[in-house]
Amino acid sequence: MIDGAELDRAIERNKEAVMRELGDFCAQPSISTQDLGMREMARLVVRALERRGFSTRMVETPRYPAILAECRGQGDKKLLFYNHYDVQPPEPLDQWQSPPFQPTIREGKYFARGAMDDKGHLVCRLAAIDAVREVCGELPCTVKFLIEGEEEISSPSLEGVIADNSRDLEADLCLWEFGEVDGEGLSMQYLGFRGLLYVELSLQTLARDCHSGIWGSLMPNAAWRLNWALSSIKGMDERIRIPGFYERVVPPSEEDLRLMGDLPVISEAERSAMGAKGFIHPYSSPAEFYEKAVMTPSCTICGMGAGYLGEGQKTIIPAKAFAKADFRLVPDQTPEEILDKLKRHLDAEGFGDIHVNCLGMIYPSRTPVDHPYVRMVAESARDVYGRSQRIYPMSGGSGPAHYFRKHLGVPIMTAGVGYLGSNIHAPNEHIRLADFFNGIRHTARIIADLGGGLDG
Amino acid sequence: MIDGAELDRAIERNKEAVMRELGDFCAQPSISTQDLGMREMARLVVRALERRGFSTRMVETPRYPAILAECRGQGDKKLLFYNHYDVQPPEPLDQWQSPPFQPTIREGKYFARGAMDDKGHLVCRLAAIDAVREVCGELPCTVKFLIEGEEEISSPSLEGVIADNSRDLEADLCLWEFGEVDGEGLSMQYLGFRGLLYVELSLQTLARDCHSGIWGSLMPNAAWRLNWALSSIKGMDERIRIPGFYERVVPPSEEDLRLMGDLPVISEAERSAMGAKGFIHPYSSPAEFYEKAVMTPSCTICGMGAGYLGEGQKTIIPAKAFAKADFRLVPDQTPEEILDKLKRHLDAEGFGDIHVNCLGMIYPSRTPVDHPYVRMVAESARDVYGRSQRIYPMSGGSGPAHYFRKHLGVPIMTAGVGYLGSNIHAPNEHIRLADFFNGIRHTARIIADLGGGLDG
Repeated sequence: MIDGAELDRAIERNKEAVMRELGDFCAQPSISTQDLGMREMARLVVRALERRGFSTRMVETPRYPAILAECRGQGDKKLLFYNHYDVQPPEPLDQWQSPPFQPTIREGKYFARGAMDDKGHLVCRLAAIDAVREVCGELPCTVKFLIEGEEEISSPSLEGVIADNSRDLEADLCLWEFGEVDGEGLSMQYLGFRGLLYVELSLQTLARDCHSGIWGSLMPNAAWRLNWALSSIKGMDERIRIPGFYERVVPPSEEDLRLMGDLPVISEAERSAMGAKGFIHPYSSPAEFYEKAVMTPSCTICGMGAGYLGEGQKTIIPAKAFAKADFRLVPDQTPEEILDKLKRHLDAEGFGDIHVNCLGMIYPSRTPVDHPYVRMVAESARDVYGRSQRIYPMSGGSGPAHYFRKHLGVPIMTAGVGYLGSNIHAPNEHIRLADFFNGIRHTARIIADLGGGLDG
Repeated sequence: MIDGAELDRAIERNKEAVMRELGDFCAQPSISTQDLGMREMARLVVRALERRGFSTRMVETPRYPAILAECRGQGDKKLLFYNHYDVQPPEPLDQWQSPPFQPTIREGKYFARGAMDDKGHLVCRLAAIDAVREVCGELPCTVKFLIEGEEEISSPSLEGVIADNSRDLEADLCLWEFGEVDGEGLSMQYLGFRGLLYVELSLQTLARDCHSGIWGSLMPNAAWRLNWALSSIKGMDERIRIPGFYERVVPPSEEDLRLMGDLPVISEAERSAMGAKGFIHPYSSPAEFYEKAVMTPSCTICGMGAGYLGEGQKTIIPAKAFAKADFRLVPDQTPEEILDKLKRHLDAEGFGDIHVNCLGMIYPSRTPVDHPYVRMVAESARDVYGRSQRIYPMSGGSGPAHYFRKHLGVPIMTAGVGYLGSNIHAPNEHIRLADFFNGIRHTARIIADLGGGLDG
């Protein structure tokens, strides 16, 4: 049995080295979409793992290699950390208060591109490993890493890497690339992610824009047709009208409803700080709020453009129009199924002239709420945050968790160093240092607990 | 009585001087929206009129003066020419084959910004006056001009100028600022213009764009709401759904239908050259075609924008959305009435959060098809074009004709120097020189006919 207080002391002793490693990682740009610093960052990560005695392997892909690493421990349990070494582009640069690749501490917050997503998390996992080893001499379970370089460009190679290396990646538990605390400082356990289908709808009704006076009553208008097509997809009741769209939606279980009933809902103050007059779905309980927010699929118009967008009047019929939209999917919907139904729907409604271009697909994925490690990971938090994790059966966002479930059958959980205000993908990305060290303490306890347990 | 052949010989003799005057006018930029060369152009016009013995007066307005001019003739008939001395900006400059303010002749075509709209027409009127005088010694009727400098910025001062000077502007016939020949080379007589209501609809549902995964099932989406609002205004049947929208539409008279039944419809070849698969309203006769094209109001989305318009995926809920739309109105609709009905409709449909900003208003206007001068002007064309004018009871476009009808009660007709390919408001604006001289010959005959007649 391992003593939690000893773990915390080891973490405290290593503080300086950990901050140095975080600084080295965050100072190295690694922007996958711009091919900037990617090889250099991969080498930094490999060195950090090898220094710790991990056997590592670079798995080449058409773009950036994935890093596989393993360090055997006592016992037969295996923990897999999924992380990524690429980051989002830092633009718009003028909105950063300090340069994005020059890590800066202000008021207990650590600012850098990648501070949370995902270098802070990667360093958190490494620091937790160091602390456990320092206390125990060796790891109480086998620890594996899968660290990809293409997460910010939709993980195009990830499924292949997992499928081709499924024996090496086999594990009892996968700790996801991120974790957050909520507004009350409690750690959040997300057990699922919605899927995604991202499409661009476009059409052209005329060779070029033409005069709205002469032709307004004669010529087909691309903007009108796009409007009607979109309105045929979702009506003011917020219900998606594509036939069969909800067919494969699995309703929340009793246990889901019970867990969601204990979660705090977004407060009136938070909602109105976002400028919204109300939520689009009314609700009468926390369980209903979460059922609508994350257990129900959505369709969002993300962008829409046609014709004249400048100042003042221009009297034209737009020849072209387009919209970008995403569908967030829940089990057991699949992006292929929804894409197919969307196309059939448009054809059936008389919009065969609208071209549907698929820009992205992610499967929805869930870890069963009654998996025994869910409780274990949640309870590991108690000693750090004063309470066990709050368990969210699903989150609204999307991620490539499906591939891990499909090829490895592993349960996936979240625990980490972020909070809801971390500005991921935005200027001034940061973590709070207190959260960072709490994340390390929690991760160390998860390693210890999976390996056989912590002193009570 | 005046001899048409003599008029033509006089026009032929003055050819060089006319071309020089056209060149001087077109070489002088006069872009009202950019305040470029406006005073210089006004002075050029005043000098051209005074040289011809017209008494002229500058009527100051908040932006550019209107020029009023008069030259008394024999008899008591009065002809009013409405023209404008401002032009559209020439941009995009890189699409001009010769500089826009450096008039250039290529293959019988005269290229310059303003060649048709409206300097070619102004010079045409002056050249016709010169020819009539040369043949008759003096004008057979009084000729007046109203030449404004704000036509290309929606004539904000025109109604005031007309109302304040209605006695000076009183006339038996107003020749409109433009005229065109059709694809067969026949002159077109437009007896009416549709009105215009130009609005921008905009809304904001959030303080800023937010993440479509986390918030997609919760937060109101400005793009969706705009879509539903627009679809509530016009459906796929192309019928406008604003209650009472068609209430004041005057259906075509028997005479309108008879005249429209004789007009050529847009050919399949012309339609398909514009890239359109079909017209939005089916028709079974020329009269029905024109009834739908110009005697029925329309609503055109001219521009529409929300959220992310760049390449690839961005997963956001747009906080803001807007659309620009014009309504083309027919007698007896008014822009105020339609604006009011639009606002009531949006409120009633639950879109009280959509802001309606009115960017422009023009009244519809018609000259009665049985006015005796309609036939006279149409017949004046026979000697020039080999056939009388084709009479269009309405055109699809809009113009400030209503103010002339309202304050002066004058019938308004079109005859001039353009053709359907003149590229007005576009790069490479031009007139065909043959059309230019035919326009002068026709205008001279109109002056002669109003003054008492031409030799048969």
